[in-house]
Amino acid sequence: MTMTAPETATGTKIVLGKNQYGKAEVRLVKITRDTARHQIEDLNVSSQLHGDFESAHTEGDNSKVVATDTQKNTVYGFARDGVGTMERFLTRLGEHFTGEFDWVSGGRWAAEQYFWDRIQDHDHAFSRNKSEVRTAVLEIADGRKNIIAGIEGVTVLKSTGSEFHGFPRDRFTTLKETTDRILATDLTAKWRYNTDAVNAGDIQFDDIYASVRELLLGAFANTHSLALQQSMFEMGRAVLEAHPEIDEIRMSLPNNHHFLVDLESFSLDNPNEVFFAADRPYGLIEAAIKRDGVADTHPIWENSSGFC
Amino acid sequence: MTMTAPETATGTKIVLGKNQYGKAEVRLVKITRDTARHQIEDLNVSSQLHGDFESAHTEGDNSKVVATDTQKNTVYGFARDGVGTMERFLTRLGEHFTGEFDWVSGGRWAAEQYFWDRIQDHDHAFSRNKSEVRTAVLEIADGRKNIIAGIEGVTVLKSTGSEFHGFPRDRFTTLKETTDRILATDLTAKWRYNTDAVNAGDIQFDDIYASVRELLLGAFANTHSLALQQSMFEMGRAVLEAHPEIDEIRMSLPNNHHFLVDLESFSLDNPNEVFFAADRPYGLIEAAIKRDGVADTHPIWENSSGFC
Amino acid sequence: MTMTAPETATGTKIVLGKNQYGKAEVRLVKITRDTARHQIEDLNVSSQLHGDFESAHTEGDNSKVVATDTQKNTVYGFARDGVGTMERFLTRLGEHFTGEFDWVSGGRWAAEQYFWDRIQDHDHAFSRNKSEVRTAVLEIADGRKNIIAGIEGVTVLKSTGSEFHGFPRDRFTTLKETTDRILATDLTAKWRYNTDAVNAGDIQFDDIYASVRELLLGAFANTHSLALQQSMFEMGRAVLEAHPEIDEIRMSLPNNHHFLVDLESFSLDNPNEVFFAADRPYGLIEAAIKRDGVADTHPIWENSSGFC
Amino acid sequence: MTMTAPETATGTKIVLGKNQYGKAEVRLVKITRDTARHQIEDLNVSSQLHGDFESAHTEGDNSKVVATDTQKNTVYGFARDGVGTMERFLTRLGEHFTGEFDWVSGGRWAAEQYFWDRIQDHDHAFSRNKSEVRTAVLEIADGRKNIIAGIEGVTVLKSTGSEFHGFPRDRFTTLKETTDRILATDLTAKWRYNTDAVNAGDIQFDDIYASVRELLLGAFANTHSLALQQSMFEMGRAVLEAHPEIDEIRMSLPNNHHFLVDLESFSLDNPNEVFFAADRPYGLIEAAIKRDGVADTHPIWENSSGFC
Repeated sequence: MTMTAPETATGTKIVLGKNQYGKAEVRLVKITRDTARHQIEDLNVSSQLHGDFESAHTEGDNSKVVATDTQKNTVYGFARDGVGTMERFLTRLGEHFTGEFDWVSGGRWAAEQYFWDRIQDHDHAFSRNKSEVRTAVLEIADGRKNIIAGIEGVTVLKSTGSEFHGFPRDRFTTLKETTDRILATDLTAKWRYNTDAVNAGDIQFDDIYASVRELLLGAFANTHSLALQQSMFEMGRAVLEAHPEIDEIRMSLPNNHHFLVDLESFSLDNPNEVFFAADRPYGLIEAAIKRDGVADTHPIWENSSGFC
Repeated sequence: MTMTAPETATGTKIVLGKNQYGKAEVRLVKITRDTARHQIEDLNVSSQLHGDFESAHTEGDNSKVVATDTQKNTVYGFARDGVGTMERFLTRLGEHFTGEFDWVSGGRWAAEQYFWDRIQDHDHAFSRNKSEVRTAVLEIADGRKNIIAGIEGVTVLKSTGSEFHGFPRDRFTTLKETTDRILATDLTAKWRYNTDAVNAGDIQFDDIYASVRELLLGAFANTHSLALQQSMFEMGRAVLEAHPEIDEIRMSLPNNHHFLVDLESFSLDNPNEVFFAADRPYGLIEAAIKRDGVADTHPIWENSSGFC
Repeated sequence: MTMTAPETATGTKIVLGKNQYGKAEVRLVKITRDTARHQIEDLNVSSQLHGDFESAHTEGDNSKVVATDTQKNTVYGFARDGVGTMERFLTRLGEHFTGEFDWVSGGRWAAEQYFWDRIQDHDHAFSRNKSEVRTAVLEIADGRKNIIAGIEGVTVLKSTGSEFHGFPRDRFTTLKETTDRILATDLTAKWRYNTDAVNAGDIQFDDIYASVRELLLGAFANTHSLALQQSMFEMGRAVLEAHPEIDEIRMSLPNNHHFLVDLESFSLDNPNEVFFAADRPYGLIEAAIKRDGVADTHPIWENSSGFC
Repeated sequence: MTMTAPETATGTKIVLGKNQYGKAEVRLVKITRDTARHQIEDLNVSSQLHGDFESAHTEGDNSKVVATDTQKNTVYGFARDGVGTMERFLTRLGEHFTGEFDWVSGGRWAAEQYFWDRIQDHDHAFSRNKSEVRTAVLEIADGRKNIIAGIEGVTVLKSTGSEFHGFPRDRFTTLKETTDRILATDLTAKWRYNTDAVNAGDIQFDDIYASVRELLLGAFANTHSLALQQSMFEMGRAVLEAHPEIDEIRMSLPNNHHFLVDLESFSLDNPNEVFFAADRPYGLIEAAIKRDGVADTHPIWENSSGFC
């Protein structure tokens, strides 16, 4: 994707490297009202195109720039036929843009999905379940698709069953060892499906999402934790053991510190009952757990943050 | 509470008016571990004192300034005996500060409570329910207590059963009338308990909270709405009809606009199925619903925003 | 504004109390391009109407409900003639709505204004100055106007010249006294203009804003502080002494704690040099400073939070 | 960094991939008070270690886990000698951790720096400049350092000198072409220094930051823009032409849409004067601009989001 541009004052050519553009955070609410019992789907969709866009950058030539407004319109137009499984909706979008415009060689389509519960089992009244967000990213490159699915915004806590001791001590170490602490985190997990399975097209994304969610929460709850790292690894292992379609899973887990309050000054004991929930700083524990032989990097992760 | 101070250059005395101070957002997590099946209570507590603090303002004399750090410590110390019903916990705090320090004539103690669900019915693993926040404010003045309870952060939506028409039209009116629209809002409600009932001390705050929550959601869901104002009034009426201890309820309801996307340009119809969920601007509908004879204002509302 | 409604199950009539509705956060950017040197005005405007809206609440009758969409349109339409001094722009809006619709007896019009600096003195390129937000609220009731102006989002800090000692100690007091600490806060100030002066119409709002800003910052900087309360009072006094048009000023000042880090464990001293800037909890110091004789309450403050 | 672990139920070994851990968002305020004219430095520092941490994940063995609390303490301890140029402060931290602990092979140290202005040229009173945040990331791997520097949170706008036309049209294209629109964005730029220059240790980071800032703003202001892509490329080119130590610069630029309000319904014209500033969706334009021959990827970018 490296392209040429005029010589510069310093004698080195300056060129356009990797690039992408599109429309971010298209807020889409789809009501399915085939019967009196409505269904609601609520997504935040982003579309970004990869391809031959050099002249837009170097000359302001927009002849190949599919307007970001057009990308937004396409999201809404495609929703008319229904949304359904979010990975499949993103695939419809990705195949459209790469098929419709010769110079669009690939791209990145991502979404967050928000969940709603029925109010008192009502047919058309809902309240939003804010305890969990489902995510997905599709990347198309060289005619192949890759998909990362994920879960975010799930705050979990164990009130016991967590220890932390045996760590090295140096001049700057003041932390006391503990055999009983609160362990709390905000779960962000992203799992990458096997590329062949994605392109074969037979992954049951919705079922797997529900299963992964339960496996992650269950492993967090049931692992007697000697370190958040250990909990994280067990969470990832549980997912990979159960789901052969998943090649690797990455997690980013803040250690949301809950400090035992010193009540001794008030002549009170505190047997792990009263805690101060701190904001910052927080521990941050991150890892990939993967099948043996899976490479340490994969192109779809490189811009998983949405930055090029 | 108006007090004197030296003459000023303009010939008018400048004096201290209403004032309060304290510690805000004390994050308290209390684990009850009497049995292997732990309980978790998670609050954000604020304490503000009213009283004779003029000399701190005019002279920097802190001899009566109960340190905000002390107020924080008191919250944690009191939690050692358990938290329980949040209105009662605030009452313990308020009675302590007004009883312990002669010059503290009253104050304002407020809290938010966050809810946690058990993970897979686990004894000591929880995930936070972010779909709802419970709130309470206790104000003590002139030896009397007043309490406002509330619910916040509940996002609700009706996919049909909402109309909006018959409004006046002027030069600036372009909105089309509709007999079928999405109605969505973020519920913030605060209800004020009858002062005598509060001071008699026999209100079942937890049961009433659970009931009010269901009544508000149910009335939102079941009211065929001709205006968000109408839904709001029905929500308030349902609460007041069921709970004689409540004198009035106030709600602030943004009208979270969901605009029907115009798909005609793409040769598609859109029979109320595909919507754009807008951020800003939003409608904002606010009212007090109350028993006849209740005054339009009450001192506890005046600083319900926490600003004096 | 109390109105009747049908008897309820509990034998007490349930009625509509104070209420208001409108459009919130209308994001308005106005470019004045009379010359090649453009001007930019950037506001966030909210409009809320008071009046005879009972039947909308009790019957869903919208015949008097000036649509919130119409209110938004009016903001944009009025901006075509320019914005200018924000208090005057709000006044144009308020006079329009109360003049155009018989049943609109008053209302509340508020705005935030964001500032932009020129980039390298460019004619039409700007960067936003995020260090300060100007605010204003106009309330019309009973044919009279009241105006509160304000400043928000200004974060200030003194690295010395702040002490805190002499406070009372009880069982829960552990705070050490200090004669040298960091004092930091996020300034939120709102000042209420004299009602007669507002209605006479000759207040120089822009000049006063600039002056108040400098007075508040100057008094914060130059007061040797024995308590944040004292700094706050001096800040308010400076404003009231200089500006006879202002009846009172209210401030809400978080005490943004900067804790001296204990470096002794690492065999290092810390002579007030290395600090941890904490998020929560924080002190919260609030007061009205006013001219002698000004009442402790004024209706415009009651819904200064925008909640009824 | 791929390591082995026991066989799993599916017959594929599950192993730990890339991983890192540390303390995030250590809020550090350093006052230099050698003279009466104080200096303030305000940073948000994150430290993450890479190395041999497998057994912590697979066995809960913490014997090599330098506690995140220790990392935090080290940040504060090192600040006792002063902070200074943030890239050099991060280098001190990185060299410490990789030098002190054999098994720490590298890591990632990042910081945001916040700026403060003096209040009225006061010696020890400051107000925070919120219009800009400076960032830096140091990564150490295989005994080599790499550094990315950046600027964030700068909101810029051109009120003319921006066109957008000539783009392709398909079934979903409804956007009108324009030769005069508002162009606005929130600047996020990250530039990667040449690895050899970083390891030679003679880069003038502070001067370059100041220069890059001016070059980016100047190019944004002075480029007559046919597309935001073109403005972005010119911004990057200006930086690379001026600074041979920089190999590449990446930018992420939301297109903050300002829609011309249709005032015709109110019988008003709108010659590019009155705009609605929209929140979402927004365009998102991202690219790397680099010297010819620089690879499309570099390991330091892979976890520039802080996610593994």
